[in-house]
Amino acid sequence: MGKLWEKGYRLDAEVERFTVGKDYILDQELVEVDCLGSIAHARMLSEIGILTKREFSGLKAALLEIIRLDKKGKFKIKPADEDVHTAVENFLTKKLADLGKKIHIGRSRNDQVLVDLRMYARGHLLDIEEEVLGLVEVLVDFAKKHSRVPMVGRTHTQPAMPSSVGLWAASFAEALLDDLELIKTAYDLNNQSPLGAAAGFGTSLPIDRGLTARLLGFRKVQNNVLYAVTSRPKFEAVILFALSQVMDDLARLASDLIFYSVPEMRYFTLPKEYCSGSSVMPQKRNPAPLELIRAKAAGVGACLTQVTNTARLLPSGYNRDFQETKEALFRSFETTEASLKISRLIFSKLKVNEKALLAGFTPEVFAADLATKMAEEGVPFRKAYKEVAQKLDKLESQDPRENILRKKHQGAPGNLGLLRVRNKIRGELLRVKKERSRLGKVRRALLAL
Amino acid sequence: MGKLWEKGYRLDAEVERFTVGKDYILDQELVEVDCLGSIAHARMLSEIGILTKREFSGLKAALLEIIRLDKKGKFKIKPADEDVHTAVENFLTKKLADLGKKIHIGRSRNDQVLVDLRMYARGHLLDIEEEVLGLVEVLVDFAKKHSRVPMVGRTHTQPAMPSSVGLWAASFAEALLDDLELIKTAYDLNNQSPLGAAAGFGTSLPIDRGLTARLLGFRKVQNNVLYAVTSRPKFEAVILFALSQVMDDLARLASDLIFYSVPEMRYFTLPKEYCSGSSVMPQKRNPAPLELIRAKAAGVGACLTQVTNTARLLPSGYNRDFQETKEALFRSFETTEASLKISRLIFSKLKVNEKALLAGFTPEVFAADLATKMAEEGVPFRKAYKEVAQKLDKLESQDPRENILRKKHQGAPGNLGLLRVRNKIRGELLRVKKERSRLGKVRRALLAL
Amino acid sequence: MGKLWEKGYRLDAEVERFTVGKDYILDQELVEVDCLGSIAHARMLSEIGILTKREFSGLKAALLEIIRLDKKGKFKIKPADEDVHTAVENFLTKKLADLGKKIHIGRSRNDQVLVDLRMYARGHLLDIEEEVLGLVEVLVDFAKKHSRVPMVGRTHTQPAMPSSVGLWAASFAEALLDDLELIKTAYDLNNQSPLGAAAGFGTSLPIDRGLTARLLGFRKVQNNVLYAVTSRPKFEAVILFALSQVMDDLARLASDLIFYSVPEMRYFTLPKEYCSGSSVMPQKRNPAPLELIRAKAAGVGACLTQVTNTARLLPSGYNRDFQETKEALFRSFETTEASLKISRLIFSKLKVNEKALLAGFTPEVFAADLATKMAEEGVPFRKAYKEVAQKLDKLESQDPRENILRKKHQGAPGNLGLLRVRNKIRGELLRVKKERSRLGKVRRALLAL
Amino acid sequence: MGKLWEKGYRLDAEVERFTVGKDYILDQELVEVDCLGSIAHARMLSEIGILTKREFSGLKAALLEIIRLDKKGKFKIKPADEDVHTAVENFLTKKLADLGKKIHIGRSRNDQVLVDLRMYARGHLLDIEEEVLGLVEVLVDFAKKHSRVPMVGRTHTQPAMPSSVGLWAASFAEALLDDLELIKTAYDLNNQSPLGAAAGFGTSLPIDRGLTARLLGFRKVQNNVLYAVTSRPKFEAVILFALSQVMDDLARLASDLIFYSVPEMRYFTLPKEYCSGSSVMPQKRNPAPLELIRAKAAGVGACLTQVTNTARLLPSGYNRDFQETKEALFRSFETTEASLKISRLIFSKLKVNEKALLAGFTPEVFAADLATKMAEEGVPFRKAYKEVAQKLDKLESQDPRENILRKKHQGAPGNLGLLRVRNKIRGELLRVKKERSRLGKVRRALLAL
Repeated sequence: MGKLWEKGYRLDAEVERFTVGKDYILDQELVEVDCLGSIAHARMLSEIGILTKREFSGLKAALLEIIRLDKKGKFKIKPADEDVHTAVENFLTKKLADLGKKIHIGRSRNDQVLVDLRMYARGHLLDIEEEVLGLVEVLVDFAKKHSRVPMVGRTHTQPAMPSSVGLWAASFAEALLDDLELIKTAYDLNNQSPLGAAAGFGTSLPIDRGLTARLLGFRKVQNNVLYAVTSRPKFEAVILFALSQVMDDLARLASDLIFYSVPEMRYFTLPKEYCSGSSVMPQKRNPAPLELIRAKAAGVGACLTQVTNTARLLPSGYNRDFQETKEALFRSFETTEASLKISRLIFSKLKVNEKALLAGFTPEVFAADLATKMAEEGVPFRKAYKEVAQKLDKLESQDPRENILRKKHQGAPGNLGLLRVRNKIRGELLRVKKERSRLGKVRRALLAL
Repeated sequence: MGKLWEKGYRLDAEVERFTVGKDYILDQELVEVDCLGSIAHARMLSEIGILTKREFSGLKAALLEIIRLDKKGKFKIKPADEDVHTAVENFLTKKLADLGKKIHIGRSRNDQVLVDLRMYARGHLLDIEEEVLGLVEVLVDFAKKHSRVPMVGRTHTQPAMPSSVGLWAASFAEALLDDLELIKTAYDLNNQSPLGAAAGFGTSLPIDRGLTARLLGFRKVQNNVLYAVTSRPKFEAVILFALSQVMDDLARLASDLIFYSVPEMRYFTLPKEYCSGSSVMPQKRNPAPLELIRAKAAGVGACLTQVTNTARLLPSGYNRDFQETKEALFRSFETTEASLKISRLIFSKLKVNEKALLAGFTPEVFAADLATKMAEEGVPFRKAYKEVAQKLDKLESQDPRENILRKKHQGAPGNLGLLRVRNKIRGELLRVKKERSRLGKVRRALLAL
Repeated sequence: MGKLWEKGYRLDAEVERFTVGKDYILDQELVEVDCLGSIAHARMLSEIGILTKREFSGLKAALLEIIRLDKKGKFKIKPADEDVHTAVENFLTKKLADLGKKIHIGRSRNDQVLVDLRMYARGHLLDIEEEVLGLVEVLVDFAKKHSRVPMVGRTHTQPAMPSSVGLWAASFAEALLDDLELIKTAYDLNNQSPLGAAAGFGTSLPIDRGLTARLLGFRKVQNNVLYAVTSRPKFEAVILFALSQVMDDLARLASDLIFYSVPEMRYFTLPKEYCSGSSVMPQKRNPAPLELIRAKAAGVGACLTQVTNTARLLPSGYNRDFQETKEALFRSFETTEASLKISRLIFSKLKVNEKALLAGFTPEVFAADLATKMAEEGVPFRKAYKEVAQKLDKLESQDPRENILRKKHQGAPGNLGLLRVRNKIRGELLRVKKERSRLGKVRRALLAL
Repeated sequence: MGKLWEKGYRLDAEVERFTVGKDYILDQELVEVDCLGSIAHARMLSEIGILTKREFSGLKAALLEIIRLDKKGKFKIKPADEDVHTAVENFLTKKLADLGKKIHIGRSRNDQVLVDLRMYARGHLLDIEEEVLGLVEVLVDFAKKHSRVPMVGRTHTQPAMPSSVGLWAASFAEALLDDLELIKTAYDLNNQSPLGAAAGFGTSLPIDRGLTARLLGFRKVQNNVLYAVTSRPKFEAVILFALSQVMDDLARLASDLIFYSVPEMRYFTLPKEYCSGSSVMPQKRNPAPLELIRAKAAGVGACLTQVTNTARLLPSGYNRDFQETKEALFRSFETTEASLKISRLIFSKLKVNEKALLAGFTPEVFAADLATKMAEEGVPFRKAYKEVAQKLDKLESQDPRENILRKKHQGAPGNLGLLRVRNKIRGELLRVKKERSRLGKVRRALLAL
């Protein structure tokens, strides 16, 4: 068996190779979700009388078999199959003859792939959320542990004012928590059921889109059938933007670490087990994983660019162009998850060199605080500023540890507000856990229909 | 008076011109919000005993004067002032002498510009939300009016199945409503108070960040002072991503309209008052506003690219690079708002040519429906499909008006669900109105402090 | 054996997986060029007395064996090897013991990978040039064949003035010939020898960089050793920009074809063997390869974005970030070459429907020509334009075939200048052939050293 | 007078504002080149008998008057004029009545704006070339002066091997010289005459495109009239890519300088006249111009993105979208030229701190050289490498000054090959000077026609 649309002539071989591309390989990751979608679709067809109960059972059994084969790596999509949908229908037809030929009524590959991608993204977005929260926890622990370790705060890369390792680490924790809001928005948009949109124009059958949406655990039906199809690259872009923001935060973190780990700074030391060496310089311990995170952030950003540029001027309705963004989506999920894991690993082992951190505190770093103190005592601030500027070479050094503890307003080095952050983490983790458990129930219910 | 940090030598003239750039021009739009931020800051300083009540009154009166001057276009920022913050402090110092020199204690231009940008963005995001909702309303009215006008639905740009003008127009309405979710996420992130972050490391004064946040109407204090500073490009990116999604939807809409308006299709006619002509071809009516929307979408997308690429590898803390993204943000707000207005205008006048729309319905457009009907009557769908494929040249034409009405499941041409969309619009408009009224109260309260 | 820099402890397993990434898979394509580079390096070492003649022969024999194994698909790089350079050195050491350990003196993996990439790019750029020229030839033949077939010329997508299929097709031929200039610039920059740069700081050995450059067929030594390393992403960007311009031209061509192939236009018909079908619409013939070319152009453009963004702020010297751009480069070469082949195939089979093309000629299309004619006869042009504009509904139709033949100045529909284009093609093909033959000689000479 | 295409009704005011945008402001920079193009066009018309000699003289005199007015800032394009072409034709018609109405025969605004942009770009590309060469000279002088000043060479940001300030500075000089090749390719492509393409379909008049090309100093006629129009964004992209490569090199240079100027490194000191201060930290000297260059590079890169994304899927022929890229082009020229000037200024004043540079040389930096030395003396390199790795803590320090002088092969720290670079500069400067003088002659000849 070959393509679903074959009609007695064959596609030119070179064109076939070009159009299938890597789709049949990527689709291998969609086998289970494609079968789950088909179970829900078939169930709905039996509810509205298009299939008999018995037909539904027959189809379901065969779909469960595919899921089992896939688990063992034994359901392979062939290039001639084009995609997972075809491979599954071909399997059903081979096994069930005419019954297999009935499954595709009332839907199209266009809404089918949408279902698959949304279920795929749902799982992966939850994975990302967990990894983000895991890293945030590690960063908060790190910030707590080093909340009293002074670090020269910088603006314009130049030493500016007293700061702390805690403030620095916690700033990334809060950034990632904001990224979580982007991921949640993406999750909510993604969690709508496109099933029943068919080719983007609906069907004359009295299908029950609400039922399939419930069976598949979507929070609602995505209403307009044409929009369901055209929303594909939009939702991918929303997801990729969220991922790219996560990656950009990791990249800035990596970039800071690379800078702060040169021997001239030596604020932090990366364990040697995490550093690559050189083929000619025996002494080298290179922060390769950090550099790769930095580069991978540009990669995920480019995936977003690819998706938005692919979609910008496409005519309404399904276009084959959509196929090309699948790899960008899949690869970005993988990259982001791996980068989060590695970042967490690094932070759980990062060595902080307090002595080197203290060595950076030249008297000038306290200049702004001195001007503020003078102003507090009555000198108009701008005057105090100018007076301090005149005697920069006569400034006395201070104890940075005392300095940072004295800054006690909300969010300052002496009052990081980590408890507030921890509460936020706890709430978010609970939410993710609940949603994951809900999805687990949805899956089990589908398998047991 | 010149720069706040002058210390007896002058910046090289060429360097000065280069570093100031257009900032002093762009900042002209920030005069009022900068003054409002300063009123809140001064009030807080008086509450914690750094300024006397009298001093606060003096500063406030002068700041109100600036706001009045600005309204009349008489408060001009000079290149030598660098930015709005300096222009304002210089005005205060000129008018109030030493009292003016007191205002800057406990803050920095770094958190000041953040306050300004967030208040600026707050207002403009609400404007955008209103414009989006306005366009959505027009699209829904248009969809309603033309819900029974058939239109050939296309996939791969080729005729596919019966659809309707209503389905097509409503698909964009739903896309824009999803964009609204992105804007709301951006609004919430943006609506946090950075004030008190100072240079990104806080201050030794016992400032009350909660008080200034309340006075300025922010929903909460942005906690970590370092993150407040580094979040600047992140929040700009989140805003620009939302705007670029709006623009990309408008671009697709424009692109569809351009395609459907060629004489060979003539589905729609743009009023001639909206079309530009040619200097050599007397007959031309060119859809210039649509083409410009299409191009401007690429422009706003490039602004997002600019901001994320500017920020990706910057070290923690303030960096002057941030200055360069201001224009991208301001221009994107303008562009998006103008493009929404023009799109609304176009849709309120667009002529629909039902006859031309009907002419596109060749018998083949009904092929899928025929296969579905055969399948409904018992032929396995894949068989029905192949049978229909064999007799494509013998298909009979149908009445597309009846066809689309027969598709009655949720979101299909015969059941667009516009009421649901209208309810959503109503709720969102109410929310925007409430928030706008809340901001109005915040502003009046500040002026009356 | 494992990594070249192992020193008695092992890299953390998770970090190792992350840092190696797909590099060991991609490097499989570099086996031969890596060995050729090593032969040249070893020969140079023997010329300056670091290796004996015998040692050189031993190394060369083993390197030739690797090339033979690779040809048969039997030289496999393992993840633990990290990259091709390590795999090769490990093979040499296993086979030749201490002699294998001598090969790496006077170089580093940093300049080694540069040599590999430049030799890789040299071959692929020539392939691209040939494919571009092949497509240009097909386009010129097509233009010639259809030079008298009228086609409505459009501006703003709307009908504008008489044009021809020939003018349209030849416009893409000339675009691609301009792209060739970009490829040639890329080829010349790329064709410089980085060998001897070592880690970017040279070596204390008296290596002869001119000799290795000649042996490897580079047109010159890339002088500054630090620049040799930092130029890696620049040269990749230059190559990717050229490829992306080719892809964008193919995308515009595909986009035009998709537009001109809808039934309402039917200017062109794509053979059905090149069209994919639908799983639900029996009548569909979708221009899938054209849509994919359109999407792939956005993909190659995103690869350029990735490379420039990865490189923009990297510190001078080698950075591991470079590893991440390899896939972007390799994939873009593949994509561009495949898209060129498919485009050529399509044009060799594209059916032109003269009747449909003629049907587009409404009288208005001749309006500008009429104004010009009136102006030629003495009415000031702007007056003639306004007069024609007043009587648009009274214009008479003309024979478009006569019209286009009357436009005889250079480059106009009646004078396409295809001979000039053909001469250009001939010259370029000759150049490519010569360069390919030169590279063949270089390779054979290396193998026979 | 208003638009050239007015026909008795007016464009909707809001639409008019939207479509004109900033075009009338940007076009102010094109007044002279537009007039020069018109002189050439009119002359050609008189040569082929469409205008009389006397008519040509009349038109030329009026065009020269516009050029004179423009020089004094007295030729202002109004929004109602739309663009420079309309403003000029309106002036001619007002002054010369019917004669003014004759100028536009045989051309269109489409080829007219192309001529303007190409002449504009020609001048600005030469400016950029001169600025690039100026900076290269300064860098080479700087490299020469500091060729014996050691600097720790880095890979992965970590100390690697001995290098020199000279090697570092010269690496950027060579990068910029490669950028020059990109600019030259852009210049050559740009230097083709589009005049006579008219609206993209030529004209029935026997115009002499070769004559106008010669009069305007283009190296050749751009043949295919349709390609002339569609090449507009391509040529802009080619120019912007070259500019963005220059900017990216400046950004890397700025980035290195920022890193090497922190007090912990203090390799370089930026004069205080080039540094901005802080409003709260009296001690600050911030490298603002360097940060802005870094950010502006992302800006120019985004302009390239904008242009390629605007153009990718546009249909063949003129599209109004083109208007939107004008600002990206103009602003990128300005930004690049200003950034080159500032970079040159900075390098002419940059202070090099040899003591701080020497302080970075820990014994480990010599490890690779030691392994090489052992290998030179007979130990297989990989063995030597491992031996050195075992005794890293026992390495002895060396004199880095001697070390770098010992590396004498081509391009190494002890042999920078600056003479070769200087010869290249000289040749390029001569070429630019000649071309500029040629363009001057072309201009004078046009004025004197």
